[in-house]
Amino acid sequence: MTMDERQLEIGRPEIRGDAPAKARGRELFSADIYPDNLVWAGAVRAGIPHGRLLSLDASAALALPGVLRVLTARDIDGPNRHGIIHKDTPVLVDDLVRYSGDAIALVLAESASALRRAITLVRAEIQPLPALFDPDEALAEGAPQLHPDQASNLLLAAEIRTGDAETALGECAAMVEGEFSTPVQAHVFLETENGTARLEADGGISMTVSTQSPFRDRFEVGHALGIPFQRIRITSPSLGGGFGGKDGATVQCLLALAALHSEGRPVRMQWSREENLSAGYRRHGCRMRYRMGALEDGTLHALQCDLIYDTGAYAHLGGEVMELGMEHSGGPYRIPHTLIRGKCVFTNNPVAGAMRAFGVCQVSFAFESMMDLLAEKLAMDPLQLRRKNALVRGDRNCAGMRLDTSTNIAGCLELLEEHPFWHEREEWKRQAPPHTRRGVGLAAIFNAAGYGGKVRDAAIAKVELSPEGEIVVHNGVSDMGQGNSAAFLQMAGQILGQDASSLRLHQPDTLTAYPSGSSSAGRTTYTFGNALIKACQDLKARLINRAGLLLFTDNDDELRLAPGKVIHPPSQREVPLRQLAGFMPREDRVCINQFVAPVCRDVPDTATGFFIGFPHLIFAYAAHLARIQVDLATGLIRVMDYLATTDGGGVINPAMFDQQVHGGVAQGLGYALMEDLVTSQGMVLSDDLGSYLIPGAQDVPEIVSIPCQGDEESGPFGMKGIGEVAMNGPLPAIANALADACGIRVNHAPLTPSKVLAALSGLNE
Amino acid sequence: MTMDERQLEIGRPEIRGDAPAKARGRELFSADIYPDNLVWAGAVRAGIPHGRLLSLDASAALALPGVLRVLTARDIDGPNRHGIIHKDTPVLVDDLVRYSGDAIALVLAESASALRRAITLVRAEIQPLPALFDPDEALAEGAPQLHPDQASNLLLAAEIRTGDAETALGECAAMVEGEFSTPVQAHVFLETENGTARLEADGGISMTVSTQSPFRDRFEVGHALGIPFQRIRITSPSLGGGFGGKDGATVQCLLALAALHSEGRPVRMQWSREENLSAGYRRHGCRMRYRMGALEDGTLHALQCDLIYDTGAYAHLGGEVMELGMEHSGGPYRIPHTLIRGKCVFTNNPVAGAMRAFGVCQVSFAFESMMDLLAEKLAMDPLQLRRKNALVRGDRNCAGMRLDTSTNIAGCLELLEEHPFWHEREEWKRQAPPHTRRGVGLAAIFNAAGYGGKVRDAAIAKVELSPEGEIVVHNGVSDMGQGNSAAFLQMAGQILGQDASSLRLHQPDTLTAYPSGSSSAGRTTYTFGNALIKACQDLKARLINRAGLLLFTDNDDELRLAPGKVIHPPSQREVPLRQLAGFMPREDRVCINQFVAPVCRDVPDTATGFFIGFPHLIFAYAAHLARIQVDLATGLIRVMDYLATTDGGGVINPAMFDQQVHGGVAQGLGYALMEDLVTSQGMVLSDDLGSYLIPGAQDVPEIVSIPCQGDEESGPFGMKGIGEVAMNGPLPAIANALADACGIRVNHAPLTPSKVLAALSGLNE
Repeated sequence: MTMDERQLEIGRPEIRGDAPAKARGRELFSADIYPDNLVWAGAVRAGIPHGRLLSLDASAALALPGVLRVLTARDIDGPNRHGIIHKDTPVLVDDLVRYSGDAIALVLAESASALRRAITLVRAEIQPLPALFDPDEALAEGAPQLHPDQASNLLLAAEIRTGDAETALGECAAMVEGEFSTPVQAHVFLETENGTARLEADGGISMTVSTQSPFRDRFEVGHALGIPFQRIRITSPSLGGGFGGKDGATVQCLLALAALHSEGRPVRMQWSREENLSAGYRRHGCRMRYRMGALEDGTLHALQCDLIYDTGAYAHLGGEVMELGMEHSGGPYRIPHTLIRGKCVFTNNPVAGAMRAFGVCQVSFAFESMMDLLAEKLAMDPLQLRRKNALVRGDRNCAGMRLDTSTNIAGCLELLEEHPFWHEREEWKRQAPPHTRRGVGLAAIFNAAGYGGKVRDAAIAKVELSPEGEIVVHNGVSDMGQGNSAAFLQMAGQILGQDASSLRLHQPDTLTAYPSGSSSAGRTTYTFGNALIKACQDLKARLINRAGLLLFTDNDDELRLAPGKVIHPPSQREVPLRQLAGFMPREDRVCINQFVAPVCRDVPDTATGFFIGFPHLIFAYAAHLARIQVDLATGLIRVMDYLATTDGGGVINPAMFDQQVHGGVAQGLGYALMEDLVTSQGMVLSDDLGSYLIPGAQDVPEIVSIPCQGDEESGPFGMKGIGEVAMNGPLPAIANALADACGIRVNHAPLTPSKVLAALSGLNE
Repeated sequence: MTMDERQLEIGRPEIRGDAPAKARGRELFSADIYPDNLVWAGAVRAGIPHGRLLSLDASAALALPGVLRVLTARDIDGPNRHGIIHKDTPVLVDDLVRYSGDAIALVLAESASALRRAITLVRAEIQPLPALFDPDEALAEGAPQLHPDQASNLLLAAEIRTGDAETALGECAAMVEGEFSTPVQAHVFLETENGTARLEADGGISMTVSTQSPFRDRFEVGHALGIPFQRIRITSPSLGGGFGGKDGATVQCLLALAALHSEGRPVRMQWSREENLSAGYRRHGCRMRYRMGALEDGTLHALQCDLIYDTGAYAHLGGEVMELGMEHSGGPYRIPHTLIRGKCVFTNNPVAGAMRAFGVCQVSFAFESMMDLLAEKLAMDPLQLRRKNALVRGDRNCAGMRLDTSTNIAGCLELLEEHPFWHEREEWKRQAPPHTRRGVGLAAIFNAAGYGGKVRDAAIAKVELSPEGEIVVHNGVSDMGQGNSAAFLQMAGQILGQDASSLRLHQPDTLTAYPSGSSSAGRTTYTFGNALIKACQDLKARLINRAGLLLFTDNDDELRLAPGKVIHPPSQREVPLRQLAGFMPREDRVCINQFVAPVCRDVPDTATGFFIGFPHLIFAYAAHLARIQVDLATGLIRVMDYLATTDGGGVINPAMFDQQVHGGVAQGLGYALMEDLVTSQGMVLSDDLGSYLIPGAQDVPEIVSIPCQGDEESGPFGMKGIGEVAMNGPLPAIANALADACGIRVNHAPLTPSKVLAALSGLNE
């Protein structure tokens, strides 16, 4: 048996199924699709943060050779609004401009160059209105109201209350407090927002989009433009990154609108990096005020915190992002008394949306800084303080939810404690070169997986024996690059006994795959995987049965699947899958099965003001350790080593597991040290990769990833999603390491050299 | 909720789903199909029992107006042989004629009348050969060999041996012996063998046939005529009876041959009653010699028996029929020492084949007569003797097979003992009118269900949500009238929460349904039902899931199916199935699942010479009681009352359960009292319903049916097949009642008045 003939197996570091095509440049991303005879579409952006659109003059643009159409809100038949939870975002502004990136017109042109020029020639008359850029100002009495149909600029205010935090804080032997803020982070996916669309002869619209939610997109487009969703077909090839920024409409509605006005010609829209950074979604900036206290022996006793998230001009997922932050605001610890208050506020800043660690990396910075402050105050080892309070199964978390699923932050901390990075830390720190200080910092973190209560978190998997005898997985959840499709192939290979060459995967296509939710919330492999396992088991039983029919065996238990065939060891007979396919009608070659993620059946009455998505049932846990070296002259923090131990349940593929951890840590390092999407008066200043810095290869150390193997009973092969948790560690771990190295705390991320220097100089004063 | 809206439920006497259309005359049987422009086809029969076909002269027939073609063996491209186990039966004789009904030519005509005349005008020159009509003669040294490629006229000789019967017989306190014979019985289905066929434009053949095995028919036709089986489509509407006589090729190969020569015109073949009785299949005549002994306390100790089955001219299922008889030859009793020898023999009689109780009603006559003889010899109550020796789960049966499935003959006997027919029998007998005698006889019987070892006993069920929102069951096993399709609707209704108006059933069509074996062996409801349950459960989960998707529920457990809709009681919302169907692609509206019947994993080494079908795992049991009145002047036996208690596991539908018992008993009464397909020199004498008598309404008493409720764990809703077992009771019960009434034994069935009179006169002499 050659390597090629070996069936894929769960738990082995199999080569990612998507790797060969991507490594050879053969994978076609949405951005690679240039149909013949295409029309180029692009948006004219408002360019001011708040105002009333009075008129548009497209004459100069239309006079330009190669310009086909300039569409405005008047060209839209439907409600002209999209939005996942609240339909508040105009496809094209019809009255109020609420942020500088609002699209006010859509230009169709014969070429990219004509498009670029035409966009600059569309003249808009916009009456400026007083704008709000700070959430506190937006909440102040008498502030201008950004959405007249809302009661205030408050998108959502919510509260979690367990026990009696006010009283309990008074009972604490040690109490610490702090104020924190986190920056606005951009997703910076390699493949910017783009897609192609075409009006079909039957009046339907076909689109290929770089999207995390092809099935939901149909509803967004359909609603905004007044088209029945069934008439919209969306295919979602492999994404060149997503991280949440392609969860929700970006190009979709504009593209469909363009297609409706292009006489059946294909239309292409591709955002530039500048458009991506100024008009795309981004992470919510957040301000946090924490008070946390412990009893004398270090038992956490009370937490009170207030969180303010800036959602920008439109709701998008702001309320849900804040809710998830609140649910995580106490960390992976037992705290009997909590009072957690959150506000999510409209401003005239660009629109914040979903991003890896969805509201959680903000609070992680705060609660893990508080833990170190508390350890210091209690004169306890920070790791022991964390171990003492670590949640175990059966505990209630800070939201009062009893943890009945796999819960192993304790195991993660234990692995970390055993590591030389921890127990040899003092010696390592002593070896700091001249003019530097070294520090070691910890973070114990967690991240919910799945949508949470009151939101259907479900998937429908389809697996097919092709006429050629291949096993084809019809993926229903986009692959942003995180490797879910590779995991699906591995699962199919394991269950169906197939090797890589016998397996194929079709990326989502709303015509041939089934609604399976978005690629987000650490849910893709979990939710779709669970459905896929069932579909593969169905197909396995079916293939064995049909082979038994051909071989006329009286006991199908004697048959088994092998790469490309079904074999009957007792008689040494076999049936090639290709032959089997020839005997099976198409309907018989397709197996479809579904999974609905479990929801909490015993919802605690701790939360008020929550809309949907509360509580969560399943969490991934991790313990991180950063070894940093601070240049005392420049304030530059250099991360020397990084260690991540992760409870993600069972491990489908150790290599992919580590890749997820590496990616999350790297993105977290950027969040911790440099990334900041700076705006001034609502205008994005850092709108290119020269001014918006992300970590390069030199900035990311070797990252040691150790899985804390376990079993999440509800998960496919025991796994749970770990795509997000790693993002939460670097900022607090580095902030704690900085305190360890230099005795200073920088509570306002990112921890740039200038802030470090300022803090160091404060120390010296 | 009206009756119509009530979902069908297992265990209730629901109206049979097929009843309304049949009662209203709207059901289309195969015999009802008269396509436009049809060609009539009919066979020319040999008319002599053994000979060599030298030549055929069709000129006179062809000269007749309206006669299109006269086809002979030379018109067949393929091997010109069919047969389920042995391909030994010519479609059209090419050399040897082996029985009078052998087809030697096939006439195609424009009308039925031209066909009838033309058949009589085809002249055949057949050189007569010495013929064999008695199995003993056929086995005699020097007998002419009917199949030159066989070693002898013995189709199969087999033996079952447990313990040491020869020695054990010598140890018995009581030993009885006897010789028995049973008649040749005809199936006498209302709808005689028929079908229509057409050569399609693509070269395939479509047929509608009254058949019990549409999927196997494709192989029979394909093999005989040299056509790939996939090119043959067979639909099998409701049958007007079958009883085994339509299991195997009747009209199929001839019809397909006719279609190949009719230039795309539809061809119809319909056998007359005379053709049915002389050329159709029939029950195997059987001769049996029994020795059976018990210990002093009535414990059965040893059995030795020899069985000879006459299969007629061709093998058909002769070997398997004999094997099943052997497997049942010891009755439903523990007998530690058995020696069972069987021979199945070729003769020049018409071909015997499958028939309800497949080899078992023959031995039932013998072993139940022996039981009464033994009771008499032991001076024991015959019921107590049976109860004492009744098999219970864990026992080994006479073939040495350990009974690990439901086994409740004891329960059946107990129910019978409790009945007034039994305990008031002496009083009832005393009330016999003058010149009559009354007697009460018992029979404890059983019948295997399923094909038995080494034969794939499997089914594939398909259930579909139609675009109109109906649930459609695609039946894979023909409904001969026994009610399996009604049971399938009831199962689907129970699982899917649907009422009769929401359910439809498609009778087998090899294009749209899946291979599920033949309608025989008490397996249809068991095997297909088990597959259907799984398919319905799949569809239930799917419909609930898709409704959950539309309703955006986070917990599908809250949804349930109701007639025509899915409802969500917490929110009082609902989704009509019709609406759901509109959202589901076709592939998603179809669920297919399969079942393979269990086989014995611990086959005893008791049997030699067996080919396939041994051993069986599951048996239905019954205890019968007949109260008869014998007219001493005429010898006429009148059955006054009949009681049947039946262990069929769980009861799907009490009314249908009773109908099966009633039908089996009625057919058994004919077998016991009158039916005898008399041949003379291989020519059928009783070839119409004037000379072949079956019981009429006046001959069948009220039959009291009492189910002995139980649970066959492997069965659908706990059921096991009871279509055959009832057939086994009447002959022995009546023979025992005759002995009880008059002190005489007639061991050669049927128990006609003349034989009874003869026995009575023997008594008087």
